[in-house]
Parts: sequence; structure tokens; C-alpha cells
Amino acid sequence: MILLFTDFGLAGPYTGQMKAVLAAQAPGVPVIDLFADAPAFDPFLGAYLLGAYREAVPRGGVLLGVVDPGVGTDRPPLVVRADGRWFVGPGNGLFELVMRRAVAAEIEAPVEVWTIDWRPERLSASFHGRDLFAPVAARLARGEPVPGTPVAPKGVRRPDWPDDLARVVYIDVYGNVMTGLRASMLASDAVLEVAGRRVARGRTFGSVPVGEPLWYENSNGLAEIAVNQGRADAALGLRVGDGVRVVDV
Amino acid sequence: MILLFTDFGLAGPYTGQMKAVLAAQAPGVPVIDLFADAPAFDPFLGAYLLGAYREAVPRGGVLLGVVDPGVGTDRPPLVVRADGRWFVGPGNGLFELVMRRAVAAEIEAPVEVWTIDWRPERLSASFHGRDLFAPVAARLARGEPVPGTPVAPKGVRRPDWPDDLARVVYIDVYGNVMTGLRASMLASDAVLEVAGRRVARGRTFGSVPVGEPLWYENSNGLAEIAVNQGRADAALGLRVGDGVRVVDV
Amino acid sequence: MILLFTDFGLAGPYTGQMKAVLAAQAPGVPVIDLFADAPAFDPFLGAYLLGAYREAVPRGGVLLGVVDPGVGTDRPPLVVRADGRWFVGPGNGLFELVMRRAVAAEIEAPVEVWTIDWRPERLSASFHGRDLFAPVAARLARGEPVPGTPVAPKGVRRPDWPDDLARVVYIDVYGNVMTGLRASMLASDAVLEVAGRRVARGRTFGSVPVGEPLWYENSNGLAEIAVNQGRADAALGLRVGDGVRVVDV
Repeated sequence: MILLFTDFGLAGPYTGQMKAVLAAQAPGVPVIDLFADAPAFDPFLGAYLLGAYREAVPRGGVLLGVVDPGVGTDRPPLVVRADGRWFVGPGNGLFELVMRRAVAAEIEAPVEVWTIDWRPERLSASFHGRDLFAPVAARLARGEPVPGTPVAPKGVRRPDWPDDLARVVYIDVYGNVMTGLRASMLASDAVLEVAGRRVARGRTFGSVPVGEPLWYENSNGLAEIAVNQGRADAALGLRVGDGVRVVDV
Repeated sequence: MILLFTDFGLAGPYTGQMKAVLAAQAPGVPVIDLFADAPAFDPFLGAYLLGAYREAVPRGGVLLGVVDPGVGTDRPPLVVRADGRWFVGPGNGLFELVMRRAVAAEIEAPVEVWTIDWRPERLSASFHGRDLFAPVAARLARGEPVPGTPVAPKGVRRPDWPDDLARVVYIDVYGNVMTGLRASMLASDAVLEVAGRRVARGRTFGSVPVGEPLWYENSNGLAEIAVNQGRADAALGLRVGDGVRVVDV
Repeated sequence: MILLFTDFGLAGPYTGQMKAVLAAQAPGVPVIDLFADAPAFDPFLGAYLLGAYREAVPRGGVLLGVVDPGVGTDRPPLVVRADGRWFVGPGNGLFELVMRRAVAAEIEAPVEVWTIDWRPERLSASFHGRDLFAPVAARLARGEPVPGTPVAPKGVRRPDWPDDLARVVYIDVYGNVMTGLRASMLASDAVLEVAGRRVARGRTFGSVPVGEPLWYENSNGLAEIAVNQGRADAALGLRVGDGVRVVDV
């Protein structure tokens, strides 16, 4: 199984061209859109989103992650194996939290990293997702060896990035606002302050009156802010990237 | 074949996570997005849309329908068999018109209903689509028995809901406005009044001058309002949920 | 493999119903969304977009192209074989540049064209994509003969259409603006004038200061206008269909 995590959108040509490559080079392997609207051009914010949603990838499966503002520059193309899952994409920090969570979970196999040596006959300047990363993902899905050189994970790590990120990393179709904070790391009575407003924890939307905000642990473990029968993004004026403050109460 | 009918959108993580479960648990079964933008949080409006589009599901196929504002409350999870098709989702009325149309068609097999007894090891509070309904849809697609208890259909029916709904149930990508009214139930010269404006029936867009509205029977049998070379939603100021009046002429 | 090129969007019922037909009638054949947001109702603009993106279709594969404002009128339904690829859709010019580029490439096999004779039992007035074109695409993907009559290609050609189109044909998810001009046909120092503003060529976004526009050859060979770290559509006020002027310098 290959899951896609990109900022490409679905309607236009980018996701489709990657899928055409995958269908040709990894026939019979299911290809699934996990996120096509990851934070645009922002592997830092995306890393915290992917850190929480990596568990959607089954063990042995491949996550093809392309949020790549530096395409055409010299960030290294990477393969990462963490927690029994493969990750393929640019070496720009996008997989930092995936690696860190795997280490934190003390899995039996260590995190492994390779830089991709293979290059296609034709490599466009702006679409390595199609030309470079998709063919490599197809190889891994077929069970072939990594076409790259092992490197020490610490060479591509971002030790200065925080473990949890007090910012908005995603807004869903309902206007619910995901933060880069794991709910399990927050006190049960923690209060989040966003856009000058304090939001208390609840278990379900019905915990608060209609039109009022709450935060809760979402189905992938992130602290998420919503409004009962409303859109939290509009009600609170929040956008991806905005700051969140954890208030000690 | 499994078709999806949800208000999840496609770009974000919800549809993708359901598909990852389906690909793992029903390998080789095609999974197709029928609607990912059903009326949000509104199984009542959605029921009339699904009533018209149920025929996209082939006999023997499965419709996984998740419009579930009551997730986490005690609405029963259901499996419905109607007209030779399986329907899996929350027992909140979403399948009411599917059942009613099957009865109306006097099919040989009666409508059957089960409440789902099976529960996954891990059931999130907010995402039963992934944790509960997708695994059950996968079982049915594999040909396994329903993991539930048969119940009398009348126990989950909504007898007070009308047979046809004089409201806007969907607006498509072109701005065409679908009502919950079957065109076959309207007189051939019926006039629809929306937003204070009367709209006559036509067969094709060209039946009226450029910029003028008409209504017609759409490709799934619903009365649909459009504007010749324009967007009916914008021209008439219509939104999902708005009322429609059938005018006797 | 079957690729889809439409103005149907993905969320609503049109693409899904076509896919349900394809899954039933061409089981096991991958179906991939190439464009679901081609210029709406505009086969002329779409023809230049498809001319550039036709190479995403592997040789032997099928492109199901439905941009069909004349559905229900008498434009002929067509099958085209060009450059070893199949194209199925309405005879409204949508495949003009596909045919012309194949001729220009001097491939060994000539372009072949058929009008589709076959008709389904039930043909809706407004959705030939589902009822007529998808079943024909499925047949071709299964390797069956074309259900139609060969016609002389020149009978369906549009000799008065230009080889390159100096208009905006697509705006992508990042706001980058694709023109209908092949970059290879422009002088290396060609300047594009759009919305009263002159834009010079660059190789990457970083060729110009932040917030400034440039044009470059995109990953499928079209001249594309972007703004470094910004949205070109918003910054320059551009929309699909707007004119572009090539300035001799």
C-alpha cells in the first residue's frame, strides 16, 4: 500500500501524474490519498501533521510525502524506515517527527535513513514527486532494495525542532482546527489560548453550548479546537500557521 | 465494489484513512468516491440525495455512508440490505429513502436491517467511519456474514419524513441546484418557485435564453435547477437546505 | 490504465459514477484522475492543456476526456488513436492538439479516428460521460475493438485553431498560471505580457526577488507564470481564459 501526503491538491495534474507512474511501476498496489492539502510549501508544519497521521500507514507500507518548496535545490532525496513503515520524499525535515516518534516508541528496529542515489533518465526541474520520488516508492512497494546509500539518521535530523508544536497545523473540511500538540502531553485541565480567546477541554461538541469553542483529543491524538455546531476557523479567525498558547491553570 | 457517501471531503485525512482500512481488509475491492461533499452534518437532506443516487451502486455492492453528526452518541450503527445493495452507516435516517424507494419498487427481496454488534479493539470517539463502519463494509465486500443482529426495519424508519423533499439537497460543481424532488412525481408543466422566482421546466439548457433559469430531470431523476451558460446557485442566491415551492399552474 | 480529463470535479457524483461504470466493465484496470478541473465548458482551452499533458497517458492506455457543453446536441462521439494512446470523448475539438502534436511528432502510426456507433440501452440527456463514453473506454481498456466507424481525421480537425494559444489555460493549486504556449516555441529571452505587466523568463522561482513574477517551462513543457513565494493568479489578477501577449524584445 502506498499513501500520499502532499500539498498538490487532487483536482489538478500533480497527484494524477504521480499515480500514473505508481500504477505503471507498482501494478496492483493500492494508492491512497492521505493528505493532498498538507500545509503548502511548509515541511515544518507538515512534519507535525504527519507525525500524528503516520499510523494510517500499515506496517510494511510506503508513505510518499512531497511537500517540497526546495525542489531543484540541493536538499537530499531521502528514504526513511521508521516503526516498520517506509517514508520517501525530500530531506527537508518533513519526516522529522515520524523519526522522533518512532524512537520515542522504543521500537525494536532502529530508524534507518538512506539518501537516494538513483536518478531517472529525465528529471524535471520542478516535479521530483513524479520523476524521482514516485519511482522510488514504487520500487519499495514491489519489495526491491532501497536505491540509495545508508546515512546516519542524525545527519538529517532537526534537533532544534520542538517535540510538540504550539501552532495550527491543519484545518479540516468542517473548520476544525488541528494543532501540532499531542493531547496526551497536555494536562487534563489545560487551556489553549488562540486569537486572544481561552478554550477549555471537552470530550464531545455537546460539552459546550451551541456556538462555543472547545478542544479535545482528535482521532489521531492531536489537540483539536472546534465550535459546537459551527466552524472554529471562522468563529475564532484562525489560519494554518497561527500560534497557540498552552495556559497553565 | 464499495462506494463512499460522506461529508468528509477528499483532500483531508478522513476519506484516506477509511480507504486505507478498506484496502487492508478488503484487498482487491474497488473503492469509489460517490459523494464526499454530501450535505454536512445533515443526514435528513443527505437521505434524499442518496435515495436518487443509490442506483450508482451495483447489485451486490456496498455503499458506505457516513454523515454522522451524532457520532459518539447512541444512534445505532446499521447495515441495510435494500434492492440487492448493502448500505453501512449510522442509524440516523441517512438510509430512509434508500429503504423507501426499494419498498416502492416492489423488489422481490424485502428490505433487511441489522444493528452492528461488532466493536473494534480501538473505537475513537469521533471517527466511527474509520474504526467501525469501514471494517464492516470490508467484511460485507468480502462476502462474510453481517456482524450484527437483525431488527425489524420499522424500528429504524422515519415515517414522518416526506416521500419527496421540496428543498435544495445539493449544488454541483457547475452551480446546478438539485432538489429532493423526483422529476417523475411532478406534472410536466410544474413550476418551481425558489428565492421568489418562478422556474419552468425545460429539456436542455438551450430551452431558455442565455442567463435564464430552467428546471429539468437530471441524470439520476431529481428535479434540478440550472441557468443557461451560468451558475444557478449564484444567479438565484441558493444554498443547500433552501426551500423550494411547487406551484400549481 | 484509464486516465480521466474532465470538468466534473471530484467531490460530487459525476466522476464517481463514471468510475463505478469503469470498475464494473473494466475490472482490474487502474483509473486515475489526471484533471477533474479542466476549463469548465471549454473544449477549446482544454485542448491546449490536454495537448501538453497527454504524455501522462502511457502508450496503450486510454484517456477518457469529457468536457462537453454540447451534451445532448449532435457533436459526434469520438475515439481517437494518436501516438499509441486512445482518447475517448466528444467531438468538439477537445482532442485537436492531441492529434496535431502526434502528427507533428511524426510517429510511425498515423492518427486514426472513429465515430462511436454503439449506444447504451439507457442514454441520459445530460451525462454521456457515464452512459456512453465510460463504457467505450472500458471496452478499449479490455482490448476490444472500437465500437465505431473509421472516419477521415480531417473531418473532425480544427484547422483554424492555432498551434499554440496565447491565453491562460489553467491555474494550479499554488496559483501558478499555465498558458497554452509551449516554452520550446518561445525565444529564450521572450517576455510575456499579462494584465499589463511584463514577465521575463527564469529557471526557478529563486531567479527573481520574493513577490516578483517570472515565467518558466513547466514540467510538461508549457510556459507557466509564477510569483516567487506568492500566488501569481492573485498578484497579477489572472483568470482562466485571459489573454497573454508574447513581446518581441
